[in-house]
Amino acid sequence: MSKGTVVLAYSGGLDTSCILVWLKEQGYDVIAYMANIGQQEDFEAAREKAESLGAKKVFIEDLRDEFVEEFIWPTVQASAIYEDRYLLGTSVARPCIARRQIDIARQEGAQYVSHGATGKGNDQIRFELTCYALHPDIKIIAPWRIPEFYTRFRGRTDLMEYAQKHGIPVPVTPRAPWSMDANLMHIRLTEYYCVLPLAEIGSVIVSGVFCLNHAPADLYLMTKNPEDTPTNPDALEIEFKEGVPVKVTNIKDKTSKDTPLDIFSYLNEIGGKHGVGRIDIVENRFIGMKSRGIYETPGGTILFQAHLDIEALTMDKEIRRIKQGLSIKFSELLYNGFWYSPECEFVRHCIAKSQEHVEGKVQLTVLKGQVYILGRESPKSLYNEELVSLYFCVNYAKLFRLLINCFESF
Amino acid sequence: MSKGTVVLAYSGGLDTSCILVWLKEQGYDVIAYMANIGQQEDFEAAREKAESLGAKKVFIEDLRDEFVEEFIWPTVQASAIYEDRYLLGTSVARPCIARRQIDIARQEGAQYVSHGATGKGNDQIRFELTCYALHPDIKIIAPWRIPEFYTRFRGRTDLMEYAQKHGIPVPVTPRAPWSMDANLMHIRLTEYYCVLPLAEIGSVIVSGVFCLNHAPADLYLMTKNPEDTPTNPDALEIEFKEGVPVKVTNIKDKTSKDTPLDIFSYLNEIGGKHGVGRIDIVENRFIGMKSRGIYETPGGTILFQAHLDIEALTMDKEIRRIKQGLSIKFSELLYNGFWYSPECEFVRHCIAKSQEHVEGKVQLTVLKGQVYILGRESPKSLYNEELVSLYFCVNYAKLFRLLINCFESF
Amino acid sequence: MSKGTVVLAYSGGLDTSCILVWLKEQGYDVIAYMANIGQQEDFEAAREKAESLGAKKVFIEDLRDEFVEEFIWPTVQASAIYEDRYLLGTSVARPCIARRQIDIARQEGAQYVSHGATGKGNDQIRFELTCYALHPDIKIIAPWRIPEFYTRFRGRTDLMEYAQKHGIPVPVTPRAPWSMDANLMHIRLTEYYCVLPLAEIGSVIVSGVFCLNHAPADLYLMTKNPEDTPTNPDALEIEFKEGVPVKVTNIKDKTSKDTPLDIFSYLNEIGGKHGVGRIDIVENRFIGMKSRGIYETPGGTILFQAHLDIEALTMDKEIRRIKQGLSIKFSELLYNGFWYSPECEFVRHCIAKSQEHVEGKVQLTVLKGQVYILGRESPKSLYNEELVSLYFCVNYAKLFRLLINCFESF
Amino acid sequence: MSKGTVVLAYSGGLDTSCILVWLKEQGYDVIAYMANIGQQEDFEAAREKAESLGAKKVFIEDLRDEFVEEFIWPTVQASAIYEDRYLLGTSVARPCIARRQIDIARQEGAQYVSHGATGKGNDQIRFELTCYALHPDIKIIAPWRIPEFYTRFRGRTDLMEYAQKHGIPVPVTPRAPWSMDANLMHIRLTEYYCVLPLAEIGSVIVSGVFCLNHAPADLYLMTKNPEDTPTNPDALEIEFKEGVPVKVTNIKDKTSKDTPLDIFSYLNEIGGKHGVGRIDIVENRFIGMKSRGIYETPGGTILFQAHLDIEALTMDKEIRRIKQGLSIKFSELLYNGFWYSPECEFVRHCIAKSQEHVEGKVQLTVLKGQVYILGRESPKSLYNEELVSLYFCVNYAKLFRLLINCFESF
Repeated sequence: MSKGTVVLAYSGGLDTSCILVWLKEQGYDVIAYMANIGQQEDFEAAREKAESLGAKKVFIEDLRDEFVEEFIWPTVQASAIYEDRYLLGTSVARPCIARRQIDIARQEGAQYVSHGATGKGNDQIRFELTCYALHPDIKIIAPWRIPEFYTRFRGRTDLMEYAQKHGIPVPVTPRAPWSMDANLMHIRLTEYYCVLPLAEIGSVIVSGVFCLNHAPADLYLMTKNPEDTPTNPDALEIEFKEGVPVKVTNIKDKTSKDTPLDIFSYLNEIGGKHGVGRIDIVENRFIGMKSRGIYETPGGTILFQAHLDIEALTMDKEIRRIKQGLSIKFSELLYNGFWYSPECEFVRHCIAKSQEHVEGKVQLTVLKGQVYILGRESPKSLYNEELVSLYFCVNYAKLFRLLINCFESF
Repeated sequence: MSKGTVVLAYSGGLDTSCILVWLKEQGYDVIAYMANIGQQEDFEAAREKAESLGAKKVFIEDLRDEFVEEFIWPTVQASAIYEDRYLLGTSVARPCIARRQIDIARQEGAQYVSHGATGKGNDQIRFELTCYALHPDIKIIAPWRIPEFYTRFRGRTDLMEYAQKHGIPVPVTPRAPWSMDANLMHIRLTEYYCVLPLAEIGSVIVSGVFCLNHAPADLYLMTKNPEDTPTNPDALEIEFKEGVPVKVTNIKDKTSKDTPLDIFSYLNEIGGKHGVGRIDIVENRFIGMKSRGIYETPGGTILFQAHLDIEALTMDKEIRRIKQGLSIKFSELLYNGFWYSPECEFVRHCIAKSQEHVEGKVQLTVLKGQVYILGRESPKSLYNEELVSLYFCVNYAKLFRLLINCFESF
Repeated sequence: MSKGTVVLAYSGGLDTSCILVWLKEQGYDVIAYMANIGQQEDFEAAREKAESLGAKKVFIEDLRDEFVEEFIWPTVQASAIYEDRYLLGTSVARPCIARRQIDIARQEGAQYVSHGATGKGNDQIRFELTCYALHPDIKIIAPWRIPEFYTRFRGRTDLMEYAQKHGIPVPVTPRAPWSMDANLMHIRLTEYYCVLPLAEIGSVIVSGVFCLNHAPADLYLMTKNPEDTPTNPDALEIEFKEGVPVKVTNIKDKTSKDTPLDIFSYLNEIGGKHGVGRIDIVENRFIGMKSRGIYETPGGTILFQAHLDIEALTMDKEIRRIKQGLSIKFSELLYNGFWYSPECEFVRHCIAKSQEHVEGKVQLTVLKGQVYILGRESPKSLYNEELVSLYFCVNYAKLFRLLINCFESF
Repeated sequence: MSKGTVVLAYSGGLDTSCILVWLKEQGYDVIAYMANIGQQEDFEAAREKAESLGAKKVFIEDLRDEFVEEFIWPTVQASAIYEDRYLLGTSVARPCIARRQIDIARQEGAQYVSHGATGKGNDQIRFELTCYALHPDIKIIAPWRIPEFYTRFRGRTDLMEYAQKHGIPVPVTPRAPWSMDANLMHIRLTEYYCVLPLAEIGSVIVSGVFCLNHAPADLYLMTKNPEDTPTNPDALEIEFKEGVPVKVTNIKDKTSKDTPLDIFSYLNEIGGKHGVGRIDIVENRFIGMKSRGIYETPGGTILFQAHLDIEALTMDKEIRRIKQGLSIKFSELLYNGFWYSPECEFVRHCIAKSQEHVEGKVQLTVLKGQVYILGRESPKSLYNEELVSLYFCVNYAKLFRLLINCFESF
């Protein structure tokens, strides 16, 4: 008799394939669920693989539109950035993926959801907090935190063996020392010792986690190596309304995009071509440890810069100060997995309010890994400058005249 | 020929009566404007006085309802407090008064507004910033900052002499050493040397502004001396919706009020009867100097305490943290006169959003200057406690189980 | 054979007496440790009781001086207050108590420490975080979180039975519905259902935790009921240096105290006599749930008010703004048990720096539960006022003249 | 008879040469003062020019060492950045220059200082606030805010005419449309209409200040155009102690520098060679108006990135959060000219404290306008990782076990 139904976030790779089979072994019916959030993947091959491994059903869901509109756009409005450098491309995908997984669980009457996130990272937390927030009764199976699982699979060798025994296709390439997370917004690479059980990596830590080892140049997938990118820049014009892009135009060839997904994809294309958005950082994880992450966020980096610029032009100086504090808070909440918390909803509301007049066009070039803002204009700003600003200056002058008179009347 | 029309904020007292006559002397037509914001005043006598002094028109405007609903209520929602002690009763009245003055100026085609605020205080700034915000073209005449005026009127003696010469009724009582500002929310008393020209008060400063001189017990007008108040408390129940009171009930005698003005007036009555809301503080003025202020805010103090309590019961912990930061900002903006600035409107919007679920009843007693919260209940909170809280605890437990498993899987 | 040695934080009451015996039953040697932090207690009787129950050693430690100087004084400097109302009297005692317990564990070679804090409160966290911070290798036994213990002792009846069986003296009074924590700074009372296992209190929660039940008047121990306190105020003068009190003088009878413990004890005496410092609040606990707490903090409340006042007089306005933010952070850290964290040490350092010039005298009266500030003076402030302030005003005037000229040169 | 002595901040250019002569015309003795803060300048030629124009004395002061050590280094520690983009290179030079000017005024017994900053910018404020802070009695002559001066010199033509009449050497090149400020840290370019009297630039504003006009490529002086920079990166290793660089080494050619001025100059050289640190932004000025600024900060940009990285590795996560707030405050104070205010000194103290353990090496490459962090290491961090981190993880695990047990004991 079945122990119940599990909706498993399935990637098609070795780990979640093993988890799928292992869950069945434990007596669960397994529904495989793949979210298409823009990663490179042969989804049909993955579907067949899941089915062949015994999945009762397979859901392949194209979430790209909602990912851009409901999740990336608010981070653009917020100028969300974690610890001054990381644009939160992984963090923002988790609530999007988990939301649909919960929808499927409800629709299919599943009591369980499961995922292959490891026990040392932020992703498990982001994933599970979303699930609990949207479906407080759901039960979560996280094999990498279950002793029966993680003591059985102490490393890749164990997984490979298990795969061979259970007819799971085995990858022929040797494992990279990097773990990867990819979506429309970015690719994140994490050194494997950060995600593996301690037993396997003790020696690495002992020999110094943060030694000066450089990431290999061929590590990156979304972005060209800036040393090899074109020597001629591309020039873009991005148009914003209420703090989000509504149109992007290539100034030279007049290519133009005007839906959220098209805009973001095109910015990825241009950014990737010119090697924009690579960072190699150390960050503080939610659970306290520091970890090294390598990120490439081509389109997101262009948008971050362009949005900063149009916001600076159109937003009141003092509102900007207040919004800056809210954005820092938002970025922490997002990083820590609290997208669906009351406080994050409150902060998103306030930030969206601040964007009402963030409207106009930014022109920029992209070259050799860099984004150069060339200029900007705004109907709101022109109005400001031609009409309001004079009042404004005059009024400021009046205020200051008032203040100085105060003192002179002493 | 007239230099134009001035709408003068007229109090009926010696200073603004002299200003009224002086403005006429300077060649202006003067419209006298009195705002009834709850101060004790014989408005009809003041009307006659203004007319007899040559005012072209006299407007006496009852602003009490809008003062409570549009100005005091947002400060209650914000738990607005300046430098941890001052409830901002004067600050919040200024934009209310000036807004109507500007309305009258527009309606009457006046190019000028004028006021009797001195040149060392915050009130002039609060007043004038509101005027400029609502009517950027308005011209402001602030006699206490005009050398021709303040060198002519170097002290009360000069004003008295001028009054006698121009048929202005002269007060027979000696001047109090305290300057007073009164409205529905509070009475503020400031030592006179803080509002007078330096010449007159030099010796006071030299002998030590902040010596340990105590305020006389008979200084207070809205509140009884706690030594003389009843020995039996009054018990009240205040009901809140969206962070503002919608009903107050005297638990013993069942007196009940349910309009904003009635609620606030009743709280003043009870608070005053029991000597609630007296403070004697030093505060930092906008223009930098420290000054001593004595305030009595009976109803406002009761509401501040009651609102804190119902908010603590019904608001999410983390939203509370964020709102606390916004409230500090709001209090500074309000104190400094920026009610009608873009940033203050933004902050008010965010704070109002935070109050959506601040709903329920608080019971309290008032005795001998103190407010004692006895208990509280909320439909939102009960819901939380009976239903949500269990989910909540369970989910927190799941989160923590998740976290601990992370580490155990190390 | 012994499982090892446990240093138990022993209160002398029913719970920790049962824990002492139970730990011995489990095979541990038990050292009983009582911290004297100013609570009312017959320490010698407690020593005998612990010995008679089989404690290997008994330590009774007078920590009152260090509690005031090293723990209370920094909270006074910080104006520490949690959620705008709670003065943190329990929070601040925990690191003080646990620090000595760890000292004893080291000195006696004990591998374990134990305490009787329940599993739903903040105290366990404050206690244990301190232990781990000061002695990362220590092992903690928290019986109220150990299933073998808490399933055996499901309520007071079980504890009483166990006590009778093991010769533990059994209290004859019925249990109060309130749990108490007492020290020099305050007494905290918590409704019992907040600290008991869920089984016992389910019905209470279901019937509405936050109904309008009022706390009985005889609940308070440190403070008289304001209805019954003297009708004549006491007047005090408190002198501060670097933000902490160095002397208190009764203005009428000239009583004077000048050591930290004497000062604080005297303020407690006067505050208690006049019913100062009672609050009944709902607060957000670290672990998320809201709970009701009733606190009486007589001396702490007087000091809080007096320190606010002298700080307002002597501290630069803008430093005050920055310090306010740091104090909010400090209060959260303190409440949540992070006294010995790197960030709390950093914040304490910054706050102490801000107090360098907080020096002077405050005069106040205490009457019927209220503290009324009468006046204040400071050598720093006099200097400011007589000399600096003139420069200051002049310079501000210059700044503003500068600003206005900017605009006029447009 | 002389009206007194003025110490004039002299640049050698047309404006301050005219001011020098004009001040003499007004009856002042003029001491010319030039600060060498790393700008490109023929100081001896300037000296001769000043003498030939009638300066009583000429001081040419090499402030480069103190500029780096006392002013730039604290901004590096703070990660100071204004509105997320501007590294404050001009702001930080002003207090350094003005401090020495005040020293000279004191030493020479001058009652006046003077400068050529215009009446619409931030520089006049930064300059004058420093002067008043360090010498409250000083009198400041700001010709561009004096009607007699600015109505006489309504534009460049008037200056040229005056120069010719008074034997002031006249520049032969036409005026650039950009105003420049240069020092060791950066070059700032501001469109001229932002610094000229309104009369001259009205039409520019009316036609839209913030139209999409691009800055010409040949505008930049410290940095090569990234399109023309080497295709091979330079690789550097920067070593930090207490948050400031103590050594920089070129990994390839082993060039190495270890004094503050040498380190900073070398980073400028490498950064400039690769086109690092160009930005084109709109910013909010102190006096409220938005203005466009173009900045090049080659060495400062490299340092900013490297410091962020070593700080992320070595600083406690929660201290980082608090320091981030302090840095935002510091950046605003610095931008607004308040370096020598009490609050800025307080904030600098706190930030310096936070840097105690910011120590280690960062390796990076510089290529085509970009800084790529390759890796980092720290003795503090290694210690953390090998020893502390295990404790840390274990303790976190204990904390979480504690928390989960709380809930399980429900």
